[in-house]
Amino acid sequence: DFIYSLENDVKPALGSSDEVLEKFIERGIINWGATKELLEKGMMFVKQARSPETSNRLCLLIEGAPTAGTSALAAYLSKNSDFPFTKVINSREMVGFTEASKCLKINRLFDDAYRSELSCIFMNDLEQLMGYSPIGPRYQSLVLDAMYSLLSSSPPKGRKLMVICTSKRRSVLEELGLLSVFTAVIRVPFIARVEDVQMVLEESGAMSSDEIDAVVRHLSHGRIFVGVKKLLGLLDTMRVMKGVDSRKRVAAFTNLLEDEGIFVPEL
Amino acid sequence: DFIYSLENDVKPALGSSDEVLEKFIERGIINWGATKELLEKGMMFVKQARSPETSNRLCLLIEGAPTAGTSALAAYLSKNSDFPFTKVINSREMVGFTEASKCLKINRLFDDAYRSELSCIFMNDLEQLMGYSPIGPRYQSLVLDAMYSLLSSSPPKGRKLMVICTSKRRSVLEELGLLSVFTAVIRVPFIARVEDVQMVLEESGAMSSDEIDAVVRHLSHGRIFVGVKKLLGLLDTMRVMKGVDSRKRVAAFTNLLEDEGIFVPEL
Amino acid sequence: DFIYSLENDVKPALGSSDEVLEKFIERGIINWGATKELLEKGMMFVKQARSPETSNRLCLLIEGAPTAGTSALAAYLSKNSDFPFTKVINSREMVGFTEASKCLKINRLFDDAYRSELSCIFMNDLEQLMGYSPIGPRYQSLVLDAMYSLLSSSPPKGRKLMVICTSKRRSVLEELGLLSVFTAVIRVPFIARVEDVQMVLEESGAMSSDEIDAVVRHLSHGRIFVGVKKLLGLLDTMRVMKGVDSRKRVAAFTNLLEDEGIFVPEL
Amino acid sequence: DFIYSLENDVKPALGSSDEVLEKFIERGIINWGATKELLEKGMMFVKQARSPETSNRLCLLIEGAPTAGTSALAAYLSKNSDFPFTKVINSREMVGFTEASKCLKINRLFDDAYRSELSCIFMNDLEQLMGYSPIGPRYQSLVLDAMYSLLSSSPPKGRKLMVICTSKRRSVLEELGLLSVFTAVIRVPFIARVEDVQMVLEESGAMSSDEIDAVVRHLSHGRIFVGVKKLLGLLDTMRVMKGVDSRKRVAAFTNLLEDEGIFVPEL
Amino acid sequence: DFIYSLENDVKPALGSSDEVLEKFIERGIINWGATKELLEKGMMFVKQARSPETSNRLCLLIEGAPTAGTSALAAYLSKNSDFPFTKVINSREMVGFTEASKCLKINRLFDDAYRSELSCIFMNDLEQLMGYSPIGPRYQSLVLDAMYSLLSSSPPKGRKLMVICTSKRRSVLEELGLLSVFTAVIRVPFIARVEDVQMVLEESGAMSSDEIDAVVRHLSHGRIFVGVKKLLGLLDTMRVMKGVDSRKRVAAFTNLLEDEGIFVPEL
Amino acid sequence: DFIYSLENDVKPALGSSDEVLEKFIERGIINWGATKELLEKGMMFVKQARSPETSNRLCLLIEGAPTAGTSALAAYLSKNSDFPFTKVINSREMVGFTEASKCLKINRLFDDAYRSELSCIFMNDLEQLMGYSPIGPRYQSLVLDAMYSLLSSSPPKGRKLMVICTSKRRSVLEELGLLSVFTAVIRVPFIARVEDVQMVLEESGAMSSDEIDAVVRHLSHGRIFVGVKKLLGLLDTMRVMKGVDSRKRVAAFTNLLEDEGIFVPEL
Ligand SMILES: Nc1ncnc2c1ncn2[C@@H]1O[C@H](COP(=O)(O)OP(=O)(O)OP(=O)(O)O)[C@@H](O)[C@H]1O
Ligand SMILES: Nc1ncnc2c1ncn2[C@@H]1O[C@H](COP(=O)(O)OP(=O)(O)OP(=O)(O)O)[C@@H](O)[C@H]1O
Ligand SMILES: Nc1ncnc2c1ncn2[C@@H]1O[C@H](COP(=O)(O)OP(=O)(O)OP(=O)(O)O)[C@@H](O)[C@H]1O
Ligand SMILES: Nc1ncnc2c1ncn2[C@@H]1O[C@H](COP(=O)(O)OP(=O)(O)OP(=O)(O)O)[C@@H](O)[C@H]1O
Ligand SMILES: Nc1ncnc2c1ncn2[C@@H]1O[C@H](COP(=O)(O)OP(=O)(O)OP(=O)(O)O)[C@@H](O)[C@H]1O
Ligand SMILES: Nc1ncnc2c1ncn2[C@@H]1O[C@H](COP(=O)(O)OP(=O)(O)OP(=O)(O)O)[C@@H](O)[C@H]1O
Ligand SMILES: [Mg+2]
Ligand SMILES: [Mg+2]
Ligand SMILES: [Mg+2]
Ligand SMILES: [Mg+2]
Ligand SMILES: [Mg+2]
Ligand SMILES: [Mg+2]
Repeated sequence: DFIYSLENDVKPALGSSDEVLEKFIERGIINWGATKELLEKGMMFVKQARSPETSNRLCLLIEGAPTAGTSALAAYLSKNSDFPFTKVINSREMVGFTEASKCLKINRLFDDAYRSELSCIFMNDLEQLMGYSPIGPRYQSLVLDAMYSLLSSSPPKGRKLMVICTSKRRSVLEELGLLSVFTAVIRVPFIARVEDVQMVLEESGAMSSDEIDAVVRHLSHGRIFVGVKKLLGLLDTMRVMKGVDSRKRVAAFTNLLEDEGIFVPEL
Repeated sequence: DFIYSLENDVKPALGSSDEVLEKFIERGIINWGATKELLEKGMMFVKQARSPETSNRLCLLIEGAPTAGTSALAAYLSKNSDFPFTKVINSREMVGFTEASKCLKINRLFDDAYRSELSCIFMNDLEQLMGYSPIGPRYQSLVLDAMYSLLSSSPPKGRKLMVICTSKRRSVLEELGLLSVFTAVIRVPFIARVEDVQMVLEESGAMSSDEIDAVVRHLSHGRIFVGVKKLLGLLDTMRVMKGVDSRKRVAAFTNLLEDEGIFVPEL
Repeated sequence: DFIYSLENDVKPALGSSDEVLEKFIERGIINWGATKELLEKGMMFVKQARSPETSNRLCLLIEGAPTAGTSALAAYLSKNSDFPFTKVINSREMVGFTEASKCLKINRLFDDAYRSELSCIFMNDLEQLMGYSPIGPRYQSLVLDAMYSLLSSSPPKGRKLMVICTSKRRSVLEELGLLSVFTAVIRVPFIARVEDVQMVLEESGAMSSDEIDAVVRHLSHGRIFVGVKKLLGLLDTMRVMKGVDSRKRVAAFTNLLEDEGIFVPEL
Repeated sequence: DFIYSLENDVKPALGSSDEVLEKFIERGIINWGATKELLEKGMMFVKQARSPETSNRLCLLIEGAPTAGTSALAAYLSKNSDFPFTKVINSREMVGFTEASKCLKINRLFDDAYRSELSCIFMNDLEQLMGYSPIGPRYQSLVLDAMYSLLSSSPPKGRKLMVICTSKRRSVLEELGLLSVFTAVIRVPFIARVEDVQMVLEESGAMSSDEIDAVVRHLSHGRIFVGVKKLLGLLDTMRVMKGVDSRKRVAAFTNLLEDEGIFVPEL
Repeated sequence: DFIYSLENDVKPALGSSDEVLEKFIERGIINWGATKELLEKGMMFVKQARSPETSNRLCLLIEGAPTAGTSALAAYLSKNSDFPFTKVINSREMVGFTEASKCLKINRLFDDAYRSELSCIFMNDLEQLMGYSPIGPRYQSLVLDAMYSLLSSSPPKGRKLMVICTSKRRSVLEELGLLSVFTAVIRVPFIARVEDVQMVLEESGAMSSDEIDAVVRHLSHGRIFVGVKKLLGLLDTMRVMKGVDSRKRVAAFTNLLEDEGIFVPEL
Repeated sequence: DFIYSLENDVKPALGSSDEVLEKFIERGIINWGATKELLEKGMMFVKQARSPETSNRLCLLIEGAPTAGTSALAAYLSKNSDFPFTKVINSREMVGFTEASKCLKINRLFDDAYRSELSCIFMNDLEQLMGYSPIGPRYQSLVLDAMYSLLSSSPPKGRKLMVICTSKRRSVLEELGLLSVFTAVIRVPFIARVEDVQMVLEESGAMSSDEIDAVVRHLSHGRIFVGVKKLLGLLDTMRVMKGVDSRKRVAAFTNLLEDEGIFVPEL
């Protein structure tokens, strides 16, 4: 069952960035195994960020391997925090920026946030925002410094700030000394149980229930390990194989899972 | 038999870049062993990119060793996708550009693509566009960041975007974290069977059938391994050896194959 | 018992930066085990810096692991030095600055300080001010040079200057040759005794005394190791779990301590 | 016997760069052992580049150790290609250029070449044009990128382009991924046989035939290994030792060869 | 006994920089063991620099570990050279300078010096002036080049130039090829004998003679190793412990020496 | 006996740089062991450079360890070449120059030289001109490229160019690929025989013949190894020890030689 589906979106209040956030939740939030618990934990921190009794700065990191679904979950939390000021820091808008102009833009956004009593900033792929790349390794020191300064310093008295970030490389953030600025870290796991695959297949609507049963039977003899985004992407291939015979579709799909190294059959 | 030959080219619709694409298919597409299957797989993803039921962003990587023919195949797919908006990102047009102006140009092209309902962007030699070179190693971080942002972010609602890239260094893209933005990866192999060499020789028209028979007999006692582009290039030498005696021509050609390390005779 | 609590703050004299300093002491100074001795030692150096018989330059380094509470203690000392001129060098105000403008700003602040007879400069996270990051490693050489020059040269005749810095990476400062400019170094330890945890829990007011007793009982069978800032941060989670049953709250808190690796129960 | 001597130079047609090319052939082309075969091979590729049946882009690399004579041979081929448009890319004209202006200049030259139906571009010391130096190692990435783009992309339809380059470091070009853009590579060897030394001595006119006989007798008991340019350079020393006794001249010359490590006598 | 004490300073002649030099000799020159010999050796070189019979360029390097007292001794020599033109190159005045402006400033100072018949230039912490830092390692190549050029080239005919430099990292200067430009190198040792500690304590006036006797008795059972600057710094702590009981003061001081690793008691 | 002494200098013809050259020969050329042979060899190359029968470009490298006397010998050759155009490339004049302006200046000087029929360019410390430093290692690529281009390309027809360079790091030039541009390399040795020391002492006039005899007697029981410049420098110390007793002077001098590691007595 869907926790969030694209249909029931309402247009956002002034200053928020709901449309951008929704682009991260392209296929809704399917409620497979780990999802509910993660979202509850996340919403607890949203509540803590709002509370007048707590520190007035809360930084939350949602991290996981590529395609695990971190961006969608983080966007979901940001959207549902219902903070009057919600802004997204978007690398797409800063293509080709120098380090200095990147810093300027991000800095200005934090200054804007400080003007609101309750504000939420969403930063997707934190290490990518800092131009991190493992060959070298390289990253933009000026942006790293800016991040550190901005994430670790408290908003002015009477203002509360929540920052939600995602990352694919937790260990890099740790090495850079950025991990200690986060109040909490939530790890998004891969799908590793057949039941969870089944639920995703069902909710996606890309295969018939007979087909799903066949797939599930096949998968029960081996090990599965995949991010929800990857799995949904492979189902797109099913969508264009419409007229085809069911048996062939099931075979095509399970072959795909094996070719991509997602499913390893038992020997 | 030729799948595509230069004769039957029709001038392109408004906004497309057919002429540039054709330069990549200088000698047509000869239908040797692997070709058909690769093109069918490719066209299936083109179909998936068009479909309204699938994700509105599809990135396809055509990769293979130098001279394998990746550029020609990718250009063929781009050309035959028949998308109303088709653009080529051409390193030749950006010689001497700073990283920033490169980003600007590429960014603008993506913005243009977003204006069309269905658009296709062709980028040849992705790692070279990012200035990658193994000594150092070096690459242009700003361009890498731009690529990541542009390839991984979805077009606006209601727009569909297909990006087709080629690469000679898949492992570098993987290390740079760029591989995970691709929906699918197609590997172009080298020619390794005598039958495939025979077909290329026949279609090229550079040698007589008697000569080809002699070459094929010679090659059957050893191992052959060559990219289609390299093989066609060596046949150019045959074209300028026109008046020469057939026996000499065959000897010259098989010697060439051995000198270049393409053919290793059995001991 | 609180050594310093936020209530009794008086507005500062002209030229001081008390408000900024207070932001570093968000939750007051709780007098757990090590605190008193550290503050006395610190105040002794403040006295030495004021004395007309001593060198007219005194640099004090307060160092410790992340969350140990170094910033709060250093800010406390700066605030209570009661020097007529007190200034804070704040990385938040220099986001995106080039190295040169950073140097300019810091240099100007020292020049200003030289105009006062007695002045105190507070610099939080010295290595971060120099853009230090362990990946590379990287740092801003120009700023390092500036720091060295400014910290090691004496103010003009008749002027006395005290500089209080904090650092999370003492060994880096040592390697950079900066440690020898400090007159003295004070190390802030982690909390490692149950009694100290108990005092912090009590002063924080986030749990009832019954709850605290239960926590303390639990912690007595194992090893605890945590910075005061981290511990106070975790108590925020307790504040939002208000209506909940006492037993659950205690369990939640001790679980949190174990999950974060702060408490390791005996085997 | 001389294949090419400086006397018979005719002034070049419009647009060509014969004078610059001739500076590379300061002492003509002496026809020692390997020379004829190399030049024939080279001229065959020139023919191939002209042929309307072949690819419209041909890149030829003439490579060899320092002083092997690569520049003279490549210049000879360029000059004798008799292409209506012939241009030399000269590092001497770009001393102190930034990478960007270097790229601009080279790019413009290729654009110019595209305007002619048949054009030839000569680039001496390719790796030096890219600022390659083994300490680091260093090279100018922008220029390397430009080279790759320019050498690998085809001229417009109906235009034919031949590029002749020399290199002292073939392995560097290979590592940089530049070797695969060349249609063919010709290696220029060192002189290693006494007969070849004899021919060079004879053609140079720096020693009498008696002296040459004596030198040759001496050299026959050992191993010789030298580039033609180096050998001709050493003969300059003979030219200034004019009045001297023949025996002394022979001794001086053979000593020189041994001192420079060119001749290793048998033990 | 004091060789130099701050009282007897006379205001300097035109063009000199006596005030800046005096700041380096904040606590005078105490005549402990090594001092006299070092100063005599130094003054001998000053005499040599003045002599019309010797080379017209003399560079003297005073080197030693941090706190050894190199700066004070070098400043003393510069001050007492009584050269009509004496200038100090001060890193404090060049905070935030680019390499180029640093070079400009230093260059100009040498040009100024060339105008005087006899001139002395004092450069404290040579490696720091060149922005040397061991992490990397890093240094400013332009400044290093400037230093080399300026220190190794002779002043115009009829002018005599003496340059006195200090350094904490002799081995770095050696590696950088700068050591060979110095006419002579004088090494300043640490204090390692109890008698020398005693003399410093006595001259400092920070402790009573009874206290000194007690300290000396304590120190005689172990090994001592400390720079004169460090030792004088620690005595500042005694100055603020005025009212305290003698026994406690002695204990405090010997503890301090042990804590700082300066005194290692015999086992 | 002196080959060249400062007395007999005549003012130079128009365009030459004799004054600068003379500064390199501050103490004349003392004719110790190796000197005469080196100068004859050098003058032979000067003759070769002038000869109309030889290549119109001749580059000579005078190399040796620091203080060997390379600069003086190279300057002597340049001065005595009596070329109508003689110019010195002086690092002292380019302090703080950017790489580009350095290249510009050097380039311009070569262009000037090309205007004269016979020209000589003197470049002291070639690797230092390129900003070479072993820590890194570092050097200025643009200047290296310029050097390579300028040294390896021939002057226009009818012009003859001689370039004389000195170097302290022959192996670096080799690694940078610069050694192969030199027509010849002359190595300047250290003084290693007592007779040679004796001659230098005698010519210097800094000690009486009795003193010299005593020194020589002492040195005959051990190994000596020193550059002529260093030796002459140490004799300056003798010049300021004028009034002193002979025995003491001899002892002081031999001690100095031992302290500096120049003389190692036999065991
Ligand atoms: N339970 C779920 N958790 C997360 N995403 C879900 C879930 N159910 C469905 N989705 C959909 O899966 C996709 C997850 O994509 P998302 O961009 O979050 O992945 P990611 O881990 O950030 O991938 P990337 O490695 O590209 O950054 C979204 O389209 C989202 O709508
Ligand atoms: N089946 C085929 N597949 C690919 N190319 C073919 C095929 N048949 C003929 N060709 C021709 O071979 C050439 C392949 O060149 P292409 O530029 O694609 O190779 P490449 O692998 O990209 O080489 P490079 O390493 O230079 O990038 C083209 O001229 C194309 O017209
Ligand atoms: N005894 C204490 N010592 C230090 N801080 C205390 C003490 N008691 C309470 N606090 C509170 O704990 C917090 C310590 O935070 P502080 O910023 O000093 O830690 P830090 O070690 O500098 O952390 P960071 O690693 O983020 O730099 C402050 O809010 C302060 O008010
Ligand atoms: N057979 C030959 N091949 C090449 N050069 C020859 C030959 N005979 C004579 N020469 C002369 O020898 C010289 C070769 O010099 P060239 O500059 O080509 O050498 P190179 O290998 O490029 O040297 P460098 O290492 O300096 O680049 C020219 O002056 C040329 O006129
Ligand atoms: N004999 C002495 N030699 C040197 N300095 C002395 C001596 N006696 C007293 N002093 C005092 O000791 C201090 C030495 O400080 P100085 O700055 O010279 O040390 P340093 O070795 O340069 O230290 P740093 O490592 O900070 O550069 C000065 O204040 C000086 O007045
Ligand atoms: N035979 C000689 N050869 C060289 N120099 C001599 C000779 N006799 C006397 N001199 C003198 O010795 C000095 C040599 O200094 P020079 O600058 O040439 O040495 P260098 O090897 O270049 O030293 P550096 O390492 O500083 O570059 C000059 O002053 C020169 O006048
Ligand atoms: Mg994501
Ligand atoms: Mg290609
Ligand atoms: Mg802190
Ligand atoms: Mg050459
Ligand atoms: Mg000092
Ligand atoms: Mg020299």
